[in-house]
Amino acid sequence: MMEIEHWRSEIDEIDAEILRLLNMRARLALKVGALKRSARLPFCDPDRERYVLRRLQDINTGPLDHRAVYKLFRRIIGESRRIQTNVAQTNIAQRTDFVRSTKVS
Amino acid sequence: MMEIEHWRSEIDEIDAEILRLLNMRARLALKVGALKRSARLPFCDPDRERYVLRRLQDINTGPLDHRAVYKLFRRIIGESRRIQTNVAQTNIAQRTDFVRSTKVS
Repeated sequence: MMEIEHWRSEIDEIDAEILRLLNMRARLALKVGALKRSARLPFCDPDRERYVLRRLQDINTGPLDHRAVYKLFRRIIGESRRIQTNVAQTNIAQRTDFVRSTKVS
Repeated sequence: MMEIEHWRSEIDEIDAEILRLLNMRARLALKVGALKRSARLPFCDPDRERYVLRRLQDINTGPLDHRAVYKLFRRIIGESRRIQTNVAQTNIAQRTDFVRSTKVS
């Protein structure tokens, strides 16, 4: 059906925009992660997570229900945290390599 | 730290925009669902799902990795389908109520 195809191409455009924003969010989360690291603050911040999720449920107009908003953003926050942790581990690994190589030479 | 607060308020703005787009996507998915229903097509369309997920991984620039994009959009598609199904069930329930009430009167 042509009408279905029309709405699907609109969905594809929206998806590309959502993806762009998700990557932008991930970049900002990396910045926050780097600042936390240099200030020796913990990565996890349950208060901030609760604030983010509560606020989004408050401003939600639907048709997604509150449960859907909660589940989707829990995952978005989780993926942001996962890259923060990956970057942190890579940095530690690189620093360890550096220490090791300076010791060897 | 003030700098962390600054980036967090940027994240909050991006989240509000992501939420707006997710709801827009859900509305379009409801339209597609209604069209499928009237054409007696099945709700699930694995080919379309594969297409959507593959395409988003192709256009992904990072820092989110392919696995994160896959997991996030799997959930987004899943929530879209859930509201489509809910609406369909509500419609069937209303129709059944209608049939029942016309039979009683």
